[in-house]
Amino acid sequence: MRKFLALIVLIVFTNATQAQNQDSLFIRRIADEILLRGTAYENLRTLTKQIGARLAGSPQMVLAEQWGMKVLQEAQADSVWTQECMVPHWIRGGRDKVVIANGRHKNKQLQVLALGNSIGSVQTIQAPVIEIKDYDDLESKKDSVKGKIVFYNYPFNPLFIRTFQAYADAVTYRTQGPVRAANHGAKAVIVRSMSHSTDNHPHTGSTSYADTVTKIPAVAIGLRDADWLSAQLQLQLVSVTFLTHGKFLPDTIGHNVIAEIKGTQYPNEYIVVGGHLDSWDVGEGAHDDGAGIVQTIEVLRTLKALNYQPKRTIRFVLFANEENGLRGANRYAEEAKVKGEKHLFALESDNGGFAPRGFALTAGPQQKEKIKSWKNLFEPYGMNAFFEGGGADIAPLNKTQGTALAGLSPDTQRYFDVHHAANDVFENVNKRELELGAIGMTALIYLVDQHGL
Amino acid sequence: MRKFLALIVLIVFTNATQAQNQDSLFIRRIADEILLRGTAYENLRTLTKQIGARLAGSPQMVLAEQWGMKVLQEAQADSVWTQECMVPHWIRGGRDKVVIANGRHKNKQLQVLALGNSIGSVQTIQAPVIEIKDYDDLESKKDSVKGKIVFYNYPFNPLFIRTFQAYADAVTYRTQGPVRAANHGAKAVIVRSMSHSTDNHPHTGSTSYADTVTKIPAVAIGLRDADWLSAQLQLQLVSVTFLTHGKFLPDTIGHNVIAEIKGTQYPNEYIVVGGHLDSWDVGEGAHDDGAGIVQTIEVLRTLKALNYQPKRTIRFVLFANEENGLRGANRYAEEAKVKGEKHLFALESDNGGFAPRGFALTAGPQQKEKIKSWKNLFEPYGMNAFFEGGGADIAPLNKTQGTALAGLSPDTQRYFDVHHAANDVFENVNKRELELGAIGMTALIYLVDQHGL
Repeated sequence: MRKFLALIVLIVFTNATQAQNQDSLFIRRIADEILLRGTAYENLRTLTKQIGARLAGSPQMVLAEQWGMKVLQEAQADSVWTQECMVPHWIRGGRDKVVIANGRHKNKQLQVLALGNSIGSVQTIQAPVIEIKDYDDLESKKDSVKGKIVFYNYPFNPLFIRTFQAYADAVTYRTQGPVRAANHGAKAVIVRSMSHSTDNHPHTGSTSYADTVTKIPAVAIGLRDADWLSAQLQLQLVSVTFLTHGKFLPDTIGHNVIAEIKGTQYPNEYIVVGGHLDSWDVGEGAHDDGAGIVQTIEVLRTLKALNYQPKRTIRFVLFANEENGLRGANRYAEEAKVKGEKHLFALESDNGGFAPRGFALTAGPQQKEKIKSWKNLFEPYGMNAFFEGGGADIAPLNKTQGTALAGLSPDTQRYFDVHHAANDVFENVNKRELELGAIGMTALIYLVDQHGL
Repeated sequence: MRKFLALIVLIVFTNATQAQNQDSLFIRRIADEILLRGTAYENLRTLTKQIGARLAGSPQMVLAEQWGMKVLQEAQADSVWTQECMVPHWIRGGRDKVVIANGRHKNKQLQVLALGNSIGSVQTIQAPVIEIKDYDDLESKKDSVKGKIVFYNYPFNPLFIRTFQAYADAVTYRTQGPVRAANHGAKAVIVRSMSHSTDNHPHTGSTSYADTVTKIPAVAIGLRDADWLSAQLQLQLVSVTFLTHGKFLPDTIGHNVIAEIKGTQYPNEYIVVGGHLDSWDVGEGAHDDGAGIVQTIEVLRTLKALNYQPKRTIRFVLFANEENGLRGANRYAEEAKVKGEKHLFALESDNGGFAPRGFALTAGPQQKEKIKSWKNLFEPYGMNAFFEGGGADIAPLNKTQGTALAGLSPDTQRYFDVHHAANDVFENVNKRELELGAIGMTALIYLVDQHGL
């Protein structure tokens, strides 16, 4: 019996080892294809330089959808289609301005960007600025806020090693800050940018209002200007003039762009890989999320170039409107549910095109264990770390049908230097780092397709 | 007996766990100190922007030594001194030029840089160019080489995941190419730059001659120009005019700059941490190796800021002349041997100031096991990978007295975009990535000091 068990163990072990060897060889072929003949970088050049920033509702969004259709077709998908959804149509409406109105530095203009979804000031507001460290500070000063411009100066905490933790910690001042300031009668809000960059670029991003509270305009301010303004406020009262022009036009039509390779064994089991096609209206949306888009397309191109016949149906989704609505993501999950399409797994790349470190997972314990058992297959490519997480555009699939999620996890140090800012441009993406991410994504899609979850 | 053994195991395990907990807490204090109050980035700004490129023998090298003394003193070393050595004094001597001399593109100037240590052409050479793929190709074409300019167009292999492997594979065309071409009567050499960047910066670096072979001048050429030249050579004969001015002046005096904290328990056991103070004469030597220099200084500053009293004597060495002679490295090891200073361990940072991934080791099997047993202490900082390797400046210590070596291993993808080129400047170093490297170095020095090897 013991010998028999030993034999069983040996056979299982040998089979497992052979499978890993085969997987290892196929992943090396994936890597060779992408490193030798990859098109992700040149696709990104086209998307960023010929189309550029592409906020939902903008003419560039329409161009990006058309471009996405074309490149997915060229990458030899079995079929490519668009999935319509209504998307919000916010426009910046003009040049955002905050200018010092008193004291020694009168007329000094600060580097600011209106927050996404924020309303414009319509007319110039002139008011004194009050610095607020955090929400406790706001509550303690609530009687002094009325009629003033609240300056949230909550810093990105440098002590978090992974910068997304600093973002999670600080972003409430961008998303909720205007509502909470308006609650106490503030006229407008200036938010310290969600970044620890060493430059002065302001970083926009979505804010939101409550129906019951007066909507007040809000801008993000560059870090050097934030430090300067804070120092000035120690010395004297500072008044500023504040002018923004943001507004919502009526919702408009947007599209997810979807490509598919039909599964040969389990055509009714779906695997999704994607990124989001929209970006903020400044910079070129190169890291956020042009990188994820061209990596998604590269997964398709590579599987086809290697003549890979998937067992399961693989969908490549360029999601609409991640930045200020998630309408594309919700639309995709709704339709999948209505049609009874069983989604086994979804992978998103939306954390920048930097050197990949691994994957962030949202899945059941056994599914996680299975993915982590492939760790040594990812090790040669330097991406064998596993974290908790997923992706904004695939989250609705998990919510509606329990789909297991993974997010590509690139090195996080440089991401918030460029996130939602004018310097999120092609030149700040490294070709090989982008390609390594595509290798990891293709490998993970391959492994889930081969071995299930 | 079993219970007794179990108790022993429990005690040993508990002690080990407690030690790791203490270590973990101290490393977190190191990280907090560096992330909150780090000076590495501002020190790098000074070194790169106020001093700049600092090749051995240059006036900037002297300024860099003075600056190094000052900052090591300010960082509260017990003692700081210089260690004299003779260094080579190569100068570029003027602007390097390679210009197309025939055909449609007459007068087109190529982006080139004379190789370090190469002799100048003195007068303009005009000659046809012959493209050589590799040394096999050279041997097969050896009868056609005479009187020509050999263009080595051996590419950086993109299939290596870690770029240093591509460098190790290709660099022979820079170091040995001129000798081998001269052997067959070539007049000069043009070498494809050791890089897979997407731009056209030429990348210099040292070459060497043999006493028995005619010394011929040599340049590195930018990658776009290399591809263009290769394409032209498919179409037609290409002649170029070639002018460089390199020469050696007499050897001059250089210095290692050394700081020390005396050990409290084992003052006669030495631990070294260092980088090299010199750089090539183009760009600012920001990644190579300004990063390693300011990280070394940061290790000292941090240990002193935390009031750490080392058990062993720790030396902080800013080595002279890594780039084209290793004279400082050899001098340090020689004097250590003469004085009978027992060097337990040496750590170098000379692979750029990018996000750290781990350490490259040269050590005995047990020493390696001990270092790898600290892996989980490095994991929270994303630097838990171990490779084979060390550092050029610490290698002589291993050779002369068997010192265990480690090299900080940052992510390698971007390094050869800037290595030995005009774009190795401060702006291409990320503050947090630089700081994370300093955290890893301080932590490793602390662990070796605490636990020996």
